[in-house]
This record gives sequence, C-alpha cells and structure tokens, in this order.
Amino acid sequence: MSVDKLVSSLKQIHLSEYPVVSHDRVENGKEWAAALQAANDVPAHSLTKTVVLKPKTPKSQEPVYLVVVSLDSTQSPSSIAAKSAGFKEARLAAADVVESVLGVKPSDVSVFSITSGNNAQVKVVLDDALVKSDKPLAFHPNTADKTLIVPVAAVQQYLESVGVKPVVVDFTAPVAAPAAKKAPAPKADASKAAIENAALIGVTVRKDLDFPGWYQQVLTKSDMIEYYDISGCYILKPWSYFIWEVIQKWFDTEIKKIGVKNGYFPLFVSSRVLEKEKDHVEGFAPEVAWVTRAGSSDLEEPIAIRPTSETVMYPYYAKWIRSHRDLPLRLNQWNSVVRWEFKNPQPFLRTREFLWQEGHTAFLTKEEADKEVHYILDLYSRVYSDLLALPVVKGVKSENEKFAGGLYTTTCEGYIPTTGRGIQGATSHGLGQNFSKMFNIAVEDPDAELVNGERPKRYIWQNSWGLSTRTIGVAVMVHGDDKGLKLPPAVASIQAIVVPCGITNKTTDAQRAELENKCKQIADSLVAGEVRAEVDLRSYTPGYKFAHWELKGVPLRIEYGPNDAKKEQVTAVRRDTFEKIAIPLANLANGVQDVLAAIQKNMYEVAKKARDAHIVKVKEWKDFVPALNKKNLVLIPWCNTTPCEKLIKEKSARQANGDEPEDEKAPSMGAKSLCIPLEQPTGEDAIVPGVTKCCYCGEEAKVWGLFGRSY
Amino acid sequence: MSVDKLVSSLKQIHLSEYPVVSHDRVENGKEWAAALQAANDVPAHSLTKTVVLKPKTPKSQEPVYLVVVSLDSTQSPSSIAAKSAGFKEARLAAADVVESVLGVKPSDVSVFSITSGNNAQVKVVLDDALVKSDKPLAFHPNTADKTLIVPVAAVQQYLESVGVKPVVVDFTAPVAAPAAKKAPAPKADASKAAIENAALIGVTVRKDLDFPGWYQQVLTKSDMIEYYDISGCYILKPWSYFIWEVIQKWFDTEIKKIGVKNGYFPLFVSSRVLEKEKDHVEGFAPEVAWVTRAGSSDLEEPIAIRPTSETVMYPYYAKWIRSHRDLPLRLNQWNSVVRWEFKNPQPFLRTREFLWQEGHTAFLTKEEADKEVHYILDLYSRVYSDLLALPVVKGVKSENEKFAGGLYTTTCEGYIPTTGRGIQGATSHGLGQNFSKMFNIAVEDPDAELVNGERPKRYIWQNSWGLSTRTIGVAVMVHGDDKGLKLPPAVASIQAIVVPCGITNKTTDAQRAELENKCKQIADSLVAGEVRAEVDLRSYTPGYKFAHWELKGVPLRIEYGPNDAKKEQVTAVRRDTFEKIAIPLANLANGVQDVLAAIQKNMYEVAKKARDAHIVKVKEWKDFVPALNKKNLVLIPWCNTTPCEKLIKEKSARQANGDEPEDEKAPSMGAKSLCIPLEQPTGEDAIVPGVTKCCYCGEEAKVWGLFGRSY
Repeated sequence: MSVDKLVSSLKQIHLSEYPVVSHDRVENGKEWAAALQAANDVPAHSLTKTVVLKPKTPKSQEPVYLVVVSLDSTQSPSSIAAKSAGFKEARLAAADVVESVLGVKPSDVSVFSITSGNNAQVKVVLDDALVKSDKPLAFHPNTADKTLIVPVAAVQQYLESVGVKPVVVDFTAPVAAPAAKKAPAPKADASKAAIENAALIGVTVRKDLDFPGWYQQVLTKSDMIEYYDISGCYILKPWSYFIWEVIQKWFDTEIKKIGVKNGYFPLFVSSRVLEKEKDHVEGFAPEVAWVTRAGSSDLEEPIAIRPTSETVMYPYYAKWIRSHRDLPLRLNQWNSVVRWEFKNPQPFLRTREFLWQEGHTAFLTKEEADKEVHYILDLYSRVYSDLLALPVVKGVKSENEKFAGGLYTTTCEGYIPTTGRGIQGATSHGLGQNFSKMFNIAVEDPDAELVNGERPKRYIWQNSWGLSTRTIGVAVMVHGDDKGLKLPPAVASIQAIVVPCGITNKTTDAQRAELENKCKQIADSLVAGEVRAEVDLRSYTPGYKFAHWELKGVPLRIEYGPNDAKKEQVTAVRRDTFEKIAIPLANLANGVQDVLAAIQKNMYEVAKKARDAHIVKVKEWKDFVPALNKKNLVLIPWCNTTPCEKLIKEKSARQANGDEPEDEKAPSMGAKSLCIPLEQPTGEDAIVPGVTKCCYCGEEAKVWGLFGRSY
Repeated sequence: MSVDKLVSSLKQIHLSEYPVVSHDRVENGKEWAAALQAANDVPAHSLTKTVVLKPKTPKSQEPVYLVVVSLDSTQSPSSIAAKSAGFKEARLAAADVVESVLGVKPSDVSVFSITSGNNAQVKVVLDDALVKSDKPLAFHPNTADKTLIVPVAAVQQYLESVGVKPVVVDFTAPVAAPAAKKAPAPKADASKAAIENAALIGVTVRKDLDFPGWYQQVLTKSDMIEYYDISGCYILKPWSYFIWEVIQKWFDTEIKKIGVKNGYFPLFVSSRVLEKEKDHVEGFAPEVAWVTRAGSSDLEEPIAIRPTSETVMYPYYAKWIRSHRDLPLRLNQWNSVVRWEFKNPQPFLRTREFLWQEGHTAFLTKEEADKEVHYILDLYSRVYSDLLALPVVKGVKSENEKFAGGLYTTTCEGYIPTTGRGIQGATSHGLGQNFSKMFNIAVEDPDAELVNGERPKRYIWQNSWGLSTRTIGVAVMVHGDDKGLKLPPAVASIQAIVVPCGITNKTTDAQRAELENKCKQIADSLVAGEVRAEVDLRSYTPGYKFAHWELKGVPLRIEYGPNDAKKEQVTAVRRDTFEKIAIPLANLANGVQDVLAAIQKNMYEVAKKARDAHIVKVKEWKDFVPALNKKNLVLIPWCNTTPCEKLIKEKSARQANGDEPEDEKAPSMGAKSLCIPLEQPTGEDAIVPGVTKCCYCGEEAKVWGLFGRSY
C-alpha cells in the first residue's frame, strides 16, 4: 500500500490526520532515532519495531507467520512470542519469505504491512507495553525512509479493519502455563482460552486519556456495535438493540395512554414536497440522500430519503383534517431516517442512518398543543432518568438553535463528564401554525362568529417530537469505565449473570456437576422472579468470566461456590460499586431485585452528582471561558438574542485557543447555547428585570441561559 | 387539460390504458350515440351526461357550483341534486360561468373538467346508477369531438386524486328529510350527516364485479391506507398498522422463546458487497434503488438500498463466527426494504417499500438448520390461521421458484377466492452452505478428525426467513365484503364498538345523558375485561354509525337502548354473520369474549371452506385449464422439473386466451407452481413410483404439485 493510501485509509478508520515525516533510509532503531531527531516538527513519540517470525509447523501444513509488533525498547524474545501465539517455537523469517508474504522488505515492515489480502497468513503479537504506551507510536509506513506517527488506538483499529485479532503479550511477565489446560471440557481450545484470559478481552485504553478510543473499544468489545463498511453506518447488535426495545416499549405504552397511535409513512419523499417549507428544507437540504436510479433505469425525478417526516406527512394531514372534529390528530412512527452528514460520524451520536420515533400531532388550539409539547418532554426526561439513570436539564432552545421551520423547541440536555460537553438528548417541538399555513391544514373555526353565513378558517397548531438511539450513546459515555460498559438494570438485557465459582483441581466431576446444576437453578428461579438472568457455564476460569461480564456491563454478578453452598447464599457483586453482598437463597429473587433497584438509583445519583458539580453559574464574562475549560456547562444571565449568542460562541472559541485542549477532537470549540432551563434560578439569583445584565453583552438579561461545548 | 395529459394522468391513477375515440363534434346524447355507433372498435359502454348547476346562495357568499354527473339514461332533476348537496334549489349555470369556472364549454364538460385548481368552487353529485354501472362509462375528455371510455372505479379515483368527495345520489328514490335534523347536538352539521348517511361512506363497487376497485375503496374508506404521491408507496394508517403491531408482538415473542435476538443492520449496502453472491444479485438487481447523491455532492460510488439483507449481514457473520461455540447465531430485524418493481403496484401486495421482519441464522449442522426452517414456517402458518383467520398450504417451492441463491424455500400459500389466485404468504429459506462459501463463514469442524494437527474447516448452514405487511392485504382480500372490511378479532384494534340506540324525538336530555353514560360504562367494563372496546357518542344516527363501523370491519357491534336497559342486556351484532345476540350485562365481558372467539373461529372456517372447495386434484392435462378457469388452484401429479413447469405456465396461459378473463388485470396469466405441499395426498391418490405419470409431460410423477394463477 502506498503511503498516501495508507494515511488516507487510516484517516477513514480513526478519523484524524497523521503526520508523515520523510528522512534518510534507516536500517535499525538507532539510525531511526537519529533521523527523527534531525527532522523538524516531529511530535512526541515512541519508536516501534516489527519482526516477522516463522513458527515450526508440519511441512504438509500451510505455514503461518508471526508478526511481532513491539516498542523498540521492549525485549521481545521469539520464544515468548511463539508460545503466546500457541506455537512451540519460531525463528526469524527469511527476507524473501517476508517479501513474498507481506510485499515489503524486512526493514520496511510494520503493522501496516498487514492487509486484508494477507491476513490469513499471519498472526499478530502486540507488545503489552506498546498497547499501554501513553505516547503516539512511530512506524515505517512500509518504507524505511518515512515515519508515520499514530495513536495506539489507531493501530488497534487498523488491525480490526483488516480482520486481524492480535494477541497481546506482556514480554516482562513470566509465561504462564496455559490456564485452560485445567479446564475439563474435552473440546475446549486450551491455548485460545488462556490467551483471551490474559489481556485481549478488556478495554485497552483509558477513558480519561483517550475518550474516543475508549468509546469505540467499549462499543465493539462489549458487542454493542459493529463498524460497517459504509462510513457513518453501524450495526446495532442485540446487546445494544435490547436497550432500544426497552425504551420503545416504555415510551410506546406511555404515548398510547394519551391517545397517540402508530402508523407508517414512506421512506421516500418527492423533491417537490420536500422543498415546500423553505426554512425547513434549508435546514436539511445539505444532508439529504437522493435516489436517482432504480435497477438500470434513471428515475425521471430524484427522490429523497426522509431526513425527518414533516413534509412527508403534512400534505396528508391537510387532506385528513377537514373539521375540528378530526382533531386532535396524533400519530407516531418508529422508523429510521437518513441524514448524510459530512462531519465525523460517531456511533449512536452522529450516524448517517439512525433509529428513532417521530410523533406528529395537530390540535385546534395552541393551549392543547403546548400542553402536549411539555408532556412529551417529560416523558423524554423520564426515559433518561428512569430507564438510563441519567439526569437531563429540561429547557427551551434559543431562536438560533430551534427546529428549522418550527415555532419553538423544547429539549432535554445531557452532560458528558469526561469531555465536559453538553449533548442534546431529545427534542419536542411546537411547530405553531407555520407548517399548517404552508400545507394549508385548516378547519372552520368553531369558536368564531359567522361571517356572511360561513365560519372563518383557522390554521391548526402542530407539534413534532423525536427520540433516537442517541440515548444509548449518552448512557455508554456517562456510565462506562475502564472495565467497560456499565448498564443500568432497567435496560440491561442480562441484569444478573450467575457464575459458578470455587472449582479446583480437587473438585470431583460429580461435585462440579452439582454446583453447575445449582447455578442453573439459581438462574431459573431468578427468571421466575422476573429478573433477566443467565448462567455462564462456559469452560473458562471465573476470572475470565468476571472480566467478560464486567466488560459487557451486566449490573450484577451472582457468584456461587462451595462456600456459598454451605451458607445457603449467593455472593452478589455490583458492577457499579464492586460491593459484595451475600443474599440468602431463601430470599433470592427479592434480594436480587432490591440490589438491582439500588444499583439503578445509585447510578442515577452518581451521574447526577457529577453533572451538578459541573453546572456553574457565571455572571462575569471573564469567568466564562475558564469555567468552560474546567469541563463545565455554564449558566449565565443572558439577553437571549441571536447576535449575542453568536458572539459568545465565537469569543469562547477564540479564547480557548490559548488553553490546553480538553478533547483532541474539539480543541477550540466555542460554547453553544444549550437551552434556557425551564427551572430558572430563584431567590438571590433570580433575574431582576431592568437590573440584571447579560453576562456577555451587558444589555438587559432576560433569562438564565445554559451554555456549553456540545456534541 | 389536454386529452393526452388527461389519459396519461388517468393511467397514473388507475394504471390501465383507456381508449379515446375521435368523431364529429356532438351536442347531445342522441348525436353522441350515433357518432359512436359509426366509429370502429368502440368497446361496450354507457353514455354519461354532465350538467353544471348554480345553487341559490346569498350574494355576499363565494358561489359554489354543482357538477351533476349521471348516466345519460338517468333523469336527474336539479331539485334532487340540489337538495342532496344541501342546497334549497339550483338552476343551470350560464355558459360563460361554466367556461370561467371549469375552463370548457357546457357541451364539452365532463367529470374530468374538475381539477385540483377548481375543486374548491364545485361540489360533485354522482348518479347512483352510474356508480353501480356494470359497463364502462363514456365521457367527453373536455372536448365533445372525442370520447374516453373508463371503468367506474377510475372516475372515483380521479375525483379522489383531485381532492373531491362526491355525493352519491339515487335519483330514483324519494328524497328523505335530512335525518340528522333530529340529532340534538347543536353544533352537528345536519346536512353533512344526512348526506354521509345516505351513500357516501360505503364501498360503492361490488367485490365480485370490480375487485381491484373494491380493494382500493375498502382500503381507503376504512382508513387503512392512504395513497402516496410516489407511485408504489402507501401510507399505513393506524387502522392497518395496528394489525402489524399485533403480528409483530406475537411473532417476536415466539422467536425470542427459541433464542432469536433482535438487532438492526443498515439500510444501505455497497455495490461491492451486494454483488458478491451472483445468483442472489441477479434475482434482485433489476429492482434495486440506488443513492448517488447526498446534499449537492455526488457520491464516489453509488450505494444501494437493501432489497433484503443477506449480503448486508453475512460479511459480518464471517467475522463473528470463529468457532462452533459461536453457533447457533440467530438474529432478526424488523425493518423496511425497498424493491423498485415496475409491475403494477398494489397496496400491501406489491409495494416499492414494505415492512417486514427478516431472520438470518447460522448453524453447525444441516439438521439444526432444517429444523428451524420448518419451525419458523409453522409460526408463519399460525400468523395466518390464529391471528388473521386464514388457511394456508405449507409446502416447498420448486427449483424454479425458490429464493435466489438459497438451497430450498418453504412457503405458506394463501388463496384469494374472488380471483381464484394463489398468493405467497411468507417464506422460510434453507440457504444451505451457498452463502457461507461465498462469504467464507466457516469454523473448525468439531466432529472431524485432526488433519496434520488441525481440524478441517466446515462451512456453516444458514437460513433466512421473512414475513411482511402483505399479510394484511391477504386478510382484507379474503374476508372483506360489499359492506367493507371484516377484521378478525385477534387483530382488530377495536374489537367491539358500543353504540347508543333508541334515542327519539321523545327522549329527554336527561334520558339521553343516562343512556350515553351507561354506554360509556359498558365500554369501560369491556376494556377492564380485556376487550378492545370503544364507545361511539358522535352526533350521528345509529344507522350511520352502523355503516361506518361495518365499513371499518369492527368484529362486534354492541347496541344499547331503552329496550336493552329494561332487560339488563346489550344486543351484540356480529360483523361476520350479522347475527344478533343478547348478552346479559351481568356477564358482559365474558359473554363478549365468547362471541369474539366464535367470530374468529367462524371467519377461519368460512375462509377454509371457500379455499378447500377450490383446490382440485387434476390428473389429466385436458382438465387443467378448465379447472383453473373455474378459479381453482390445481393439484397435479408432477415430475417436478423446471422445463415441465415452464411449459405448464406457457400452455395454461395460451389456452386461457380463448376463455373469458376472470380478472381484468390478469386475463391470460399462466399457472405457476405455487408449492409442493408438505401434506401429500395419500391412499388411492398417493404417488406410486414408476407408475404415476406427470399430469403435463407424462414422465414419471414424483410429487403432487400445487399450481395456480397467482399474485
């Protein structure tokens, strides 16, 4: 692969720019270090080295090569590398073999020499010290006269992108005897279990040091998300989709209680209809995906894929609403929409296709419409608080940030502590009469006096409101830790995982069978007690299983071993606090339900505490950017005007340039207005009309406005 | 509108070709009849006439004109037309007025002179005799020197397309005093209720005479479907979507019991991936919709919208399935797919976007895979029998009809009595190892001997299975009647509608309030007894309400009046049989549940009886086409070869040409092989190897094959 192509494909994978430094051709680490020292503008880095080994295999077998990628400073004996990868021994591969397998000379080789074309012929061993490196890594991009400097996460993502699962080896540790040799299941692949046991399954980057890398690893390693071959599209695996099903079920039940009904409108919208509402289409046009061809025929007119369904639906609302007796009309649909954004995609947060619900309702009066807007906003807030254990701020968007074409937008705003950024959680829009005037949705006004024997017409009042799978991303970002995901019990597809413990070399087969049987019974009685429980009887060590289910964020682990048997109890271990709790078998399901409720409550409280500590009131502009830079959302007395809002964004961005960026992706992002909170400060802090001044422009303050860097 | 434009827009609406006959300009019915008699190749028809009336309205008011469209043979006094439309009287409009409102001279006027541009200025009165005409209708296409001949349904659809709801008037009946004048609600619009009461809400074409027209009216008038401005796409309104929700809930629960999990894969698929499996892509390529543009940028490569998700999913199955311990993998998704068919679209049956579920599973062994294929097929069969009250034939598709790229396809085949055509209900495919070989989805074979210390790999066995909203269309077609929809209780969103009865001029306000209150209580106690019940307290007459809920297919009407009050009972009226059943209030919910169960059972039995009577065994070819022409599905001893299958289709099509077509859209359609039923005839009819001959080709018969014209 050429250097350019490599850099561009890396950019695709990790979505960053990487420097490539040119220098004289080097043959070893010493020459390389010198060459980089001589070059200009080389970022801080650690040198790496890559060697190719040929393990001993029977001649009749297709040979497999070991590519060992380590820090240049790591001693990486081939014997350890070989054993870790399941071979007895290995020696350096000949230069011509390296060239024929990887297409480059040994001195040019790096991890990037592995491609999806040669991945079947290699196994990759990664140096644990390299994986944990806190500096970016220097590699030859398949040519020893250049150096590419990339973060650790990019290496791992690159390997994943070419379909390679590396073995991570700690070269400084003594090589353990493969642990699973003890495992009794005859078909278990001992060496695999041992390796996985070692290091591979966990998250290898720290949440606080490389948040984007952490987020990606948590999502993929916990089995929530699979990256898809079309950028910005992701596969929702059952582990995340279940959360969506819980949200769907709850919200669907709630809206049906107030008379909303589900239907389904087409995916496609004609350009004529899409373009009917001018402000609205301007908001969405740059992101609309267009179908222009079917089979081998060009369509007469391009057809848009809905970015949202206002213009899909409202021509029909005009047809269906003929009289005030047809009101209210309250429809909802669960569907996917497409917004072909060109910004960096992020699973759940910014994806080109996403799942959501969109409610579209019509009323005779503004009062009824307003009431529903806030009722729905409360439901959204409860999705966050009651299901996802997340606090949100309910508020109204500024004119500048409201829904394109609507009258006003209410919102639930979340907060991501690691980056200190706000995130829009869900929005409920009062559309006013703007769309009804465009689409001519009107009825004879039943409250008006007759004019010449006829009733004047009244345009109806509309709302639209939507909640998407973004919810899941927010929950992952806030709750997760360095061990992986942390799922609130309300949405976890497995709430309690039962793990048999205390099996040793001395355990007889009969004893083991009895223990496992009892574990099954424990899981069964939990299920009977309406706990979503499963039992893990795989032939791995308890330690491996603990790490596995912690990674996947299961709220409660139920350990059961000989000791527990004696005491007629289980030992429950909380994922949120790692607290161990003995629960008597006699009170199993109720006991577990109580602990799950406590976890749900605690997760909410922990998140709320972290959030509350980072919403700060600022009255003077000089304190604004420093507060922002301390990962705060900032509440200010504000004039609530668009010019001022734009200046705040501009100035907070510009000033931030001098500071240390708090997030590599958003080094100098300005603060947006997130919302005007419904709950305004009172007492001393209450806005005094004519007295309180806007924090930025000094004009009269109308409201407290919440500002922050945001997603 | 020009004649060409009119014909082309009619073609859009009703999707047929219509003849236009040119002749001398005519001024009246007599001249017209003569002109058409003199012309060549004029199809059978009834002449129509169209007159424009000006009702008396206050001068200050915007005038509205009455367009009265009748058979030429109908006496249509302007007084009756005026009263029916809610006016006291009306007289012929002056020629210049007609020309200024409709853009044509009075002698050129027809129903097609009404457009979405002038629809606000006119009300349309349709002659009941015209609506019920069994001959196509002759109109001037806005010019009296031409004649356009169209079916009745096209007129109604045209009016709908220009946003006009006609009033249908029986000019032969005495004009009734507007019924709703008696209605006490002060704001009720008496004249509207009266008109709607008369004829407007019902289906105006007979199921047995114009099945496509009937189908369209039933779907739109019952509020199941709204036609959409992109051809082949339809809006699923809550009345039909609820059925889908019931099916989803039931099927989703069943598949989760056997370990299937839900997820979501992207809508988009890259051309490279789509084209990986050759047979498969050949099957779908002509119908694939392509996105080529986003915002104002052309995409580098066109991206397909999934027509089904095999190729979307299987590259990732290859990644996820690394060991036999990863099996079985059983995923399902509820989504929409797009197949841009160029054949005539039909709501539910053939639509360019449709909702479905698609299950995609992977197993280590063929046995496990086969077992699941049939398990799912049974679930599909139960969706039809238990939920939709429809019988299906379970069977295996012929080689020629199986899923593109799969190993074998099992199917549920339904039957539409009115057209005598079969319809594929849902399919469960055994994909074999074909896709797993293409996508390299393999594991080390745990059952095989080691070869040189490694286990040989085994390609895994895959299934895919799908059930779509087509189910709803089949239920409508089979169960519906001339009064409208007939919903099986299991899927009806309202199972019982409570209608207060017996309110007369003598009823006091207090009595009425008491009666209505009691009706609310009845509905409430039904809801408490888990009946989906509502009460209809609108200010319409009971007769109007009866017709309304019959049209919408509600299984049970609960009448409650003073007479019922005396007897402490309700009078339940079954939609399926119109039987009246007194149910004591003391046993209300249980009594209603029993009747609903009886309706569900009876609807299934009636449908099964009609179906069973039309599956006939035929052993000799000479009896094949005659049996087909009697609206039968035909079961024949068959050699089960593709060449024979193709000849059967060809010969049955050609021979049918001599016969009267049974369905205007499919006059000479040949018989397809629908399936090889799992339940084969036994005893005397059993296939005797080497003895029984194929009904068509005379070679050895292997199986009984089910053939028929089909959707």
